[in-house]
Amino acid sequence: MMNEEDFMKKAIQLSIENVESGNGGPFGAVIVKDGKIIARGVNHVTSTNDPTAHAEVVAIREACKTLNTFQLSGCEIYTSCEPCPMCLGAIYWARPDKLFYANSKEDAAAIQFDDQFIYEEIAKPISERKLFTKQLLRTEANVAFKKWQESEHKTEY
Amino acid sequence: MMNEEDFMKKAIQLSIENVESGNGGPFGAVIVKDGKIIARGVNHVTSTNDPTAHAEVVAIREACKTLNTFQLSGCEIYTSCEPCPMCLGAIYWARPDKLFYANSKEDAAAIQFDDQFIYEEIAKPISERKLFTKQLLRTEANVAFKKWQESEHKTEY
Repeated sequence: MMNEEDFMKKAIQLSIENVESGNGGPFGAVIVKDGKIIARGVNHVTSTNDPTAHAEVVAIREACKTLNTFQLSGCEIYTSCEPCPMCLGAIYWARPDKLFYANSKEDAAAIQFDDQFIYEEIAKPISERKLFTKQLLRTEANVAFKKWQESEHKTEY
Repeated sequence: MMNEEDFMKKAIQLSIENVESGNGGPFGAVIVKDGKIIARGVNHVTSTNDPTAHAEVVAIREACKTLNTFQLSGCEIYTSCEPCPMCLGAIYWARPDKLFYANSKEDAAAIQFDDQFIYEEIAKPISERKLFTKQLLRTEANVAFKKWQESEHKTEY
């Protein structure tokens, strides 16, 4: 029976192999259900031109495909580095039971990844962020929300 | 020539159509470069079993595919609702020039979407979050980061 450290070692192994192969950043993740690895992910942002292809997002998409669901209840995610806000958001939406990480976001910042910067930006009020952001046509957009509330054939999540 | 409001109207139209078709949540996005829409996205989390398939993430993936790049410099993103942390993170990684949104995250919370909850969780120290989170094997994982720093064939992003 594999334990927490064994699963994390698999995620770390993926992260190391991903650097050695030149496929992408030094990040790997595995998702576990009932003591078995059901999905793996590595960072392939640059090799596939997909800025969302972080290890955790790739593993979550794979696990959901395998389980034929959009929710990962009963699952654990092991990632070789503390998730960036994009990946942490994806984890909250996927709703696994537990998250394990190895490197910290400060470790990632030390090798020039933006994780820490993005955490700081997201915590700021919109007007203070470096990203130019402007609200437009809120009233018009609210029509979709009203339709959603009234819809009888929606799948909530 | 289309202006900011015209582009937002397109994003809103996508969000309304997405509810009417039963495809997914009430969210749409478009990405614009040089005054033209180069990518569209709608939420299809439940219809494709992909918790990461929010309108912005879908549009970013599409735009990067179209432009054959992992960076959206020179682009603007128009989304019918303020991005959740996952999507805002994806936007920071993709690095468009400007972000426009219509509905706010409070509007999304009012129709029972978790955006506001996830913002609050991400802002908390790890030990105070509702998601069980544990650090393991940091020293072992750091090997991948050292290999990344030493690698001569890496593509930084």
